[in-house]
Amino acid sequence: MKKYKVCVLGAGMVGSAMSKDLSEKFDVTACDISKENLSQFNKSQVKTIQADLSNRKEVQKLVSGFDLVVGALPGFMGFESVKSVIEAGKNIVDISFFPEDAFELDKLAKKHDVTAIVDFGVAPGMSNFILGYYNDRMKVTRFEFMVGGLPKVREWPFHYKAPFSPVDVIEEYTRPARMMENGKVVTKDALSEPELVYFDEIGTLEAFNTDGLRSLLKTMKIPDMKEKTLRYPGYRDIIAVLKSAGFLSTDDIQIGRTNIKPLDMTSKILFKKWKLEPGEDEFTVMRINIMGTQDKKAQNIQYDLLDWNDKGTGISSMARTTGYSGTAALNLIAGGLYGQKGIITPELVGRNEECFNFVLKYLKQRGVIYRKTEK
Amino acid sequence: MKKYKVCVLGAGMVGSAMSKDLSEKFDVTACDISKENLSQFNKSQVKTIQADLSNRKEVQKLVSGFDLVVGALPGFMGFESVKSVIEAGKNIVDISFFPEDAFELDKLAKKHDVTAIVDFGVAPGMSNFILGYYNDRMKVTRFEFMVGGLPKVREWPFHYKAPFSPVDVIEEYTRPARMMENGKVVTKDALSEPELVYFDEIGTLEAFNTDGLRSLLKTMKIPDMKEKTLRYPGYRDIIAVLKSAGFLSTDDIQIGRTNIKPLDMTSKILFKKWKLEPGEDEFTVMRINIMGTQDKKAQNIQYDLLDWNDKGTGISSMARTTGYSGTAALNLIAGGLYGQKGIITPELVGRNEECFNFVLKYLKQRGVIYRKTEK
Repeated sequence: MKKYKVCVLGAGMVGSAMSKDLSEKFDVTACDISKENLSQFNKSQVKTIQADLSNRKEVQKLVSGFDLVVGALPGFMGFESVKSVIEAGKNIVDISFFPEDAFELDKLAKKHDVTAIVDFGVAPGMSNFILGYYNDRMKVTRFEFMVGGLPKVREWPFHYKAPFSPVDVIEEYTRPARMMENGKVVTKDALSEPELVYFDEIGTLEAFNTDGLRSLLKTMKIPDMKEKTLRYPGYRDIIAVLKSAGFLSTDDIQIGRTNIKPLDMTSKILFKKWKLEPGEDEFTVMRINIMGTQDKKAQNIQYDLLDWNDKGTGISSMARTTGYSGTAALNLIAGGLYGQKGIITPELVGRNEECFNFVLKYLKQRGVIYRKTEK
Repeated sequence: MKKYKVCVLGAGMVGSAMSKDLSEKFDVTACDISKENLSQFNKSQVKTIQADLSNRKEVQKLVSGFDLVVGALPGFMGFESVKSVIEAGKNIVDISFFPEDAFELDKLAKKHDVTAIVDFGVAPGMSNFILGYYNDRMKVTRFEFMVGGLPKVREWPFHYKAPFSPVDVIEEYTRPARMMENGKVVTKDALSEPELVYFDEIGTLEAFNTDGLRSLLKTMKIPDMKEKTLRYPGYRDIIAVLKSAGFLSTDDIQIGRTNIKPLDMTSKILFKKWKLEPGEDEFTVMRINIMGTQDKKAQNIQYDLLDWNDKGTGISSMARTTGYSGTAALNLIAGGLYGQKGIITPELVGRNEECFNFVLKYLKQRGVIYRKTEK
């Protein structure tokens, strides 16, 4: 295999883990506006370029010299950067989870003969990918997954540390949760329908509705689908109180002579409380259930993921589970295993048995293990 | 009895109830800076004077033409106004519950030959008054009281409505709670030592430590004394979370280019959630326990108060229980039942049997009933 030149846009927590992972096999250049973020590569084989990645022309000029691109920018920059890379005619795997509809870029990607795999993280990402595989091999009637990133040590009252900015975390608790029920898209309040669920090694967690199905609402014809977020019990009740009282509101309130959005203050306060300390142990837990029939026989397939931070490298479980899914996908393109053009979501890639096996094996080699059980 | 001219400083919720009550017997003038507050007396026999009561000279000039003064101003104005009234040589009953130490004015009051009864509300107020009575008649070893003002209808998540500003309510949850334990003043966190307590007609409430003993810490030699605040169960946990997370902090945090005290925003948010709607039913509940020995026999005397808002007049239970205690005290002075000079707290007045019986009877006539049980 030719030693591809790979450009990784973004050297944050996940992007830098991806650069390091890819550098074992590829000629990798990490790009970021922050010199500090780039300095972590000083003693590694990863090259660096400091660049303003919010500038469309700069992105296009930058990626022109590379064979493949990884998008690991913050969500709000994601859509524009993927568009720029497509216009530059480069294949990309993006894990920025931007809020816009990626399929709006489908025509553009096809026009430029580009494979643009988006949302290939852990969830969305592996959840969709695994569903995609089984949806082609059985009649799926119900798909549910629950996922969360949590600290090992539980500290009252939140028992929670955020791997990313509280504003983004809180957004999950205010955006209405869309799900499929009896073949129809229904919308429920985020935080609704809490339930207690037991996990080996971890204990009892609480799952509640969030808006995590994303592309599946469009790409899948499954009568019942839902996503839930996992937290330690008690957390959800507090967030529900804050939400109900108005602490998560983005409507200005007047204090003295200034107008303040309560969410801005709440985020500031929670940022301190939710800060994951360096070296603090944390894990990512996910359970996927795919129910239906195969040859008229009832099937209930469950995948369980429990991944811990890497104490040796200091790479978080969020960066491992999200980043290595993305780098696996990049390897699919580089290795010629996947070449469909257009905007590609993980459920489309999962249909391919060779791709399915490759990705699970790739993750397993990195200690990210999906345990399958059939009921 | 001569028809005394009484000046009531402050025509807020409690002050206006006091003016109306006193006007049945005295020539009453209500004073306030707000025309709107004064307009409620348009069709009553209460006279009104609009005045800036934060101005010391104006207060002294104002009260000079009266025989007796009632202080019913907000706490932050209380100390200065009482001082002004003393300097004007007028007897006063004050229910502003100012944070300063009233006894600092004791010499001044004696010099001007003034009786200044302070803190004569429900709690502090009647709690101290009843203790004062029994402390002279038995060996009290333990004194506890719990008190709260609550709405009839419980709405999740707070199950609470504030009869006064949330800032003042929240202050009770942040100020360390001083109490007597084994003859020593000890300080515990506000909200600490929660316990569930059952009340007839109301059900189970939750009691937690607050800083409510005030003058009793100085005037009483009782080895164990504590005060607790009563709320519906669940409320305390939420406040404890807000406090622990930093939402009640008065340390500036920076949001954009402005500095904001979290407490200022939290108060604004809770003001809306905690607003008692006009006509909304609410009650004041208090339980006082006085334990000790009388003639070497163990004694446990309990007083229970449960008072509802007056649907006819719209006067709240807070205004009834606080205001009518204060007007009872004013009647003690007017009727010559109490004449000691200096700063007088309710526990000092309660020592006098005639005063004790008069006040309880006065309150009973207004439907504010203290039920006594002996165990």
